[in-house]
Amino acid sequence: MKIRKALITAANPRQRTLPLQTLVDRDGETKAALQIVLAEAAEAGIEQFGVIVCPGDEANYAAACGPFQSQVEFIPQANPQGYGDAILRGREFCHNEPFLHLVGDHLHVSQTAVGCARQLIAIAEAENCPISAVQPTHESLLTAYGTVGGKLTGGDRPIYQIESIIEKPTPTLAEQQLIVPGLRAGYYLCFFGLHVFDAEIFNLLDEQRAGAPADKLGLTPALHAMAARRRYLALTVAGRRYDIGSRYGLLLAQLALSLAGRDRDIVLTQIVELLAHPSSGQS
Amino acid sequence: MKIRKALITAANPRQRTLPLQTLVDRDGETKAALQIVLAEAAEAGIEQFGVIVCPGDEANYAAACGPFQSQVEFIPQANPQGYGDAILRGREFCHNEPFLHLVGDHLHVSQTAVGCARQLIAIAEAENCPISAVQPTHESLLTAYGTVGGKLTGGDRPIYQIESIIEKPTPTLAEQQLIVPGLRAGYYLCFFGLHVFDAEIFNLLDEQRAGAPADKLGLTPALHAMAARRRYLALTVAGRRYDIGSRYGLLLAQLALSLAGRDRDIVLTQIVELLAHPSSGQS
Repeated sequence: MKIRKALITAANPRQRTLPLQTLVDRDGETKAALQIVLAEAAEAGIEQFGVIVCPGDEANYAAACGPFQSQVEFIPQANPQGYGDAILRGREFCHNEPFLHLVGDHLHVSQTAVGCARQLIAIAEAENCPISAVQPTHESLLTAYGTVGGKLTGGDRPIYQIESIIEKPTPTLAEQQLIVPGLRAGYYLCFFGLHVFDAEIFNLLDEQRAGAPADKLGLTPALHAMAARRRYLALTVAGRRYDIGSRYGLLLAQLALSLAGRDRDIVLTQIVELLAHPSSGQS
Repeated sequence: MKIRKALITAANPRQRTLPLQTLVDRDGETKAALQIVLAEAAEAGIEQFGVIVCPGDEANYAAACGPFQSQVEFIPQANPQGYGDAILRGREFCHNEPFLHLVGDHLHVSQTAVGCARQLIAIAEAENCPISAVQPTHESLLTAYGTVGGKLTGGDRPIYQIESIIEKPTPTLAEQQLIVPGLRAGYYLCFFGLHVFDAEIFNLLDEQRAGAPADKLGLTPALHAMAARRRYLALTVAGRRYDIGSRYGLLLAQLALSLAGRDRDIVLTQIVELLAHPSSGQS
């Protein structure tokens, strides 16, 4: 399969200004967070972007798209009913094609010259099945992420066949159900904010909704159902995710981008100066 | 004199999204940059804020004011004609009262328990004359700032009587006209983005405009004229300014706030982890 479309969720009402935050990318250019997300997808071969937004944010977000603006379709999510509901709004845009899904409040910094989205898409196209990027994550952080259990299936590559998925598990629950052989003790595979799905995800979300029409529609139960029915993989990408919606998330994302980029030495020098200067003294 | 009003310029078209950038303040709370600027002024006794904005930015900026929203009056600057022109739009709001002036793209981190704006206002109220905060700045950075020359007048306090002001001087020009006794070699007193003016500034700006009605109206020539006519002081405040419009300015401002604040240890730990982790490796 060839993946040409990306669906980006950016309609969380608590995080409406996140895509507009300004960062300096690895190449030293100042960009809105949304443009950095779009650039990562474009580098992976994506040609069309569907962005789920709060109604009214279209104009602000369009300005934040930079050179990708003409390739972006905004999909307003009126009366939001959860993460799964946001994904469902992209059904018409995706139109039966497999698609890359990114969350608008995560930035990814690759450890290699190949971006995280491109690493994931390469495996998805080769294996021809849905796949989610994951990152080994310490149990103290599980309450922030969807967490997967499964077994290695990729030979010498860090590819897992997913068997179960639990949203924000307790460490006890994770220990009982989500231990993955080969990881360091106390570490679990958590979602990275980067997935490749096909149109089946929309059918699964429809089924979930039919089962509990009054509830918020999560994504995790549909993914759990998908893992039970068909081959659904997880890949530990060579990189790290930064949740810019978390406290100090923007700071850490910016530091990671700078330290992995062109201006590494400039930024390191400024950090050291700041640490040495008495103006950082506490009052 | 008692200073109750603040005039904040935030209408630079290149920097329209700056006041909306999200930062974590010294107290560990996530706020828009504009709210941090307003909070510094409020801590110094300011009760009413006039914010000069690009027409159309009022709604976005209002949401970024946080709890100060009801004390803020937005003053749209249609057909902008320079920094001096932006200040002139605040004449009606200031209504013959002395006022604090802050630029919307600078954040200040005090070295002491007293905020930079409060340090400045205390001297302005005691000396009863206009005063600008300054910071000793290396000659390599002069091209970004208004720079003042003058002589010490405050006894043991770092207060100067301003004799001349040049906007963005070359190091040669600065050496000829702006050397200030007592500073380290190669350092000059540059504006800090924090001033106390009275209504005379509006008359001086009117005079400047009358002399060259077709030109952009700067602020520096009016300040230079003010220094020639009356007592106009500069104070080296105990703190540092961060220009969040400059490259990596947001990163440095956030680092400075964090390292001077409640979460110093948390942030230091995360920086060290990031530096140690291989994911910051360059490709």
